Amino acid sequence: MSQLISDIKKAKSAALILSALDTEIKNNALRDMAKALDENRSVILQANDKDVSEACKMTDAGELTPSLVKRLKVNDEKITGMIEGINDVVKLDDPVGETISAIKLDNDLILYQIKCPIGMIGVIFESRPDVVPQILSLCLKSGNGVAFKGGSEASYSNKALFDILTKAAASAGVPKEAFVLMETREDIAQILGMHEYIDLMIPRGSNQFVRYIQNNTKIPVLGHAAGICHIYVDDEADIDLALAVTLDSKIQYPAVCNAVETLLVNAKIADAFLPRMSKLFEDSGVEIRADRRSKEKIPKDIRTADAKKEDWDTEYNDLIISVATVDSLEEAVVFINTHGSHHTDAIITNSKGKQREFAKSVDSADVFINASTRFADGYRYGKGAEVGISTNKIHSRGPVGMEGLMIYKYVLAGNGQVVKDYVGKDAKKYLHEKIDLKYE
Amino acid sequence: MSQLISDIKKAKSAALILSALDTEIKNNALRDMAKALDENRSVILQANDKDVSEACKMTDAGELTPSLVKRLKVNDEKITGMIEGINDVVKLDDPVGETISAIKLDNDLILYQIKCPIGMIGVIFESRPDVVPQILSLCLKSGNGVAFKGGSEASYSNKALFDILTKAAASAGVPKEAFVLMETREDIAQILGMHEYIDLMIPRGSNQFVRYIQNNTKIPVLGHAAGICHIYVDDEADIDLALAVTLDSKIQYPAVCNAVETLLVNAKIADAFLPRMSKLFEDSGVEIRADRRSKEKIPKDIRTADAKKEDWDTEYNDLIISVATVDSLEEAVVFINTHGSHHTDAIITNSKGKQREFAKSVDSADVFINASTRFADGYRYGKGAEVGISTNKIHSRGPVGMEGLMIYKYVLAGNGQVVKDYVGKDAKKYLHEKIDLKYE
Repeated sequence: MSQLISDIKKAKSAALILSALDTEIKNNALRDMAKALDENRSVILQANDKDVSEACKMTDAGELTPSLVKRLKVNDEKITGMIEGINDVVKLDDPVGETISAIKLDNDLILYQIKCPIGMIGVIFESRPDVVPQILSLCLKSGNGVAFKGGSEASYSNKALFDILTKAAASAGVPKEAFVLMETREDIAQILGMHEYIDLMIPRGSNQFVRYIQNNTKIPVLGHAAGICHIYVDDEADIDLALAVTLDSKIQYPAVCNAVETLLVNAKIADAFLPRMSKLFEDSGVEIRADRRSKEKIPKDIRTADAKKEDWDTEYNDLIISVATVDSLEEAVVFINTHGSHHTDAIITNSKGKQREFAKSVDSADVFINASTRFADGYRYGKGAEVGISTNKIHSRGPVGMEGLMIYKYVLAGNGQVVKDYVGKDAKKYLHEKIDLKYE
Repeated sequence: MSQLISDIKKAKSAALILSALDTEIKNNALRDMAKALDENRSVILQANDKDVSEACKMTDAGELTPSLVKRLKVNDEKITGMIEGINDVVKLDDPVGETISAIKLDNDLILYQIKCPIGMIGVIFESRPDVVPQILSLCLKSGNGVAFKGGSEASYSNKALFDILTKAAASAGVPKEAFVLMETREDIAQILGMHEYIDLMIPRGSNQFVRYIQNNTKIPVLGHAAGICHIYVDDEADIDLALAVTLDSKIQYPAVCNAVETLLVNAKIADAFLPRMSKLFEDSGVEIRADRRSKEKIPKDIRTADAKKEDWDTEYNDLIISVATVDSLEEAVVFINTHGSHHTDAIITNSKGKQREFAKSVDSADVFINASTRFADGYRYGKGAEVGISTNKIHSRGPVGMEGLMIYKYVLAGNGQVVKDYVGKDAKKYLHEKIDLKYE
């Protein structure tokens, strides 16, 4: 048995102990972890220096991009951010043991549905070392064990952070075996095969990377591989509002998954909307790729490329937008459900009926009405900490907070009831009354 | 492209239309489906006759068991049961569109979390034709498309039921393309590879069968492969209660997944409990397989086999029980978490503290206190209709009703808000106020 398999098995057992820990122990551990980061700033910075200088050598050799090196770099301010992040998790309510519902099946036979941790979470992420304290604190608070692997370019930083944090957690009474740091690429291949031990996989990184994980494991994967978001500007749209929301959705931060990639315009409003919109795009340096009908409405002096077939299925993550004209809400909905990535799609319209129809019919995690697609984010949704954004159809969808790390169990509390009394002739009847009672 | 792939693609689109249908249309369709079954009794019985006579020939040749033929057989009474089942689904609340939560992110910027169907469900089941109306009505009511495949021994019955039901649904305005009946084994192999189109797989049948599905698809699978349930009789147990609950858990219906397979007895109560328990087992024809310490407490005149190592990991589904003596609650918990199947496990004790500890620490879907394991069932839990029993750690756990076919989407309703106003200097602040408002 490899070291990793043995570590993960131990982690699975330790996670069960962690799952039953009192809130106070967990919060004390989190506070100690925050304190330990503060006391070990120089250790963290030294480790990070090693990573950064190696990364810079690679950048000179053309292997890592400068933006990646920037994400990799840890400074005092970033450590302070990590500490604040952990303290924020202390403030979150402990979800473990919360009663979701209680049903009286019969007198003295109460069925409780109780929140509990999922078990063992696998997290694989690229470069940014700040993910280590974030994931570790979220998993600890929610009672989950975690096996994680960061980018190899951040290995010294990740190791230093992991050691400092788990040591602090252990001295506060948390079983540190519940946390495993993986260090090699071979570890990833191995963990993807461990569906008996890992209950949920959370990959954070490029689309390609997420797709690789999705395609190579039987462990459920929480995440999204692409963010091809749409805005549909209906003929009953307020044009000024449509202009502002579309521009924000495209340019406020174009490199991310919730930026808009395709603009659909109702033919009836195209004359009034597209000349102004395309001017705003041009002024903001956004490249326009339009279908024939849209191009006809865009002034000739605004540089506009012909959209190709593959544009409708492309996530640009850049200052590029594809534009198509449609004749109806129905056509827009079919377009979005066909070409979208089920992430975030918006309608701009004043018609209540069309808002409802769009919200019902678009098969996406986030369906927006008269608001920027960029709002699709755990922090903006008020989740405190974001585990990821999911386009899955089961368990968790959209921006996922700590609730995505939870499941439930049923606790049936009786006083000797047996099933034979509830079947056949003279069977006792079930009451099935919802009651307002907490399991304690 | 094969016919099946083309059918499933069409079903996926039709399911989106179904997902947005009004409750009234869906209920009318269900009523028409029930009526159609009543009007076509002879068609169903004739089709079933063909299946049964072919099955009987195979039974003579030793290929199908008589109990399977019995499950296969449809009569007037069973058709009436199917009709009642559909009418029960009419009575269930329509979950689609229900508001789960509403949060005011800012004035006129409300984030709703809304229940919606998962999309396309794959259902594979063995023999019993009554699964066809049950699954079809549950999926229709919950707004999900479904591709299903029954046992080939029931193919005439399944086809007759499917045609009658979908024809009735279609004439009530439901897109019948949302329902696909698969007919060959090759179809199963093909559908298991269609993770882009099928969102959730529900296999219903033997452990082997469920395990085969789990091991051969990337589609999430809702179900359980095994039911190795435990009862732990604590030293603070009421002995009469322990006897009655254990006996019911073993003998009330031993062939099913929620029957107990392993009995753990605290050493301190073994002298008082095991002689009486073993006598009850013997009187009920239950074979006992005990570890050395337990065997010492069982009277010599009661036939008791030595438990082998593999007994602790075996689901008997029969009148057999393995018995082990443990020294503490902690030992029992570790034993259950190691050898159990995370299905249903019970403690018998009067100690509130130990009840809580057991409920917290046992990693199973259903954790019972002083009650028979046989209560772990959708009907007994008051779910109306059971989709299956799940030992998954995400989405749905334990007995699953129609709620297991649902997910949610976020609907953000604004009036032109853009993200750039909420970042940087003079950023507007999010309110993140929970409010009591329904999306309509």
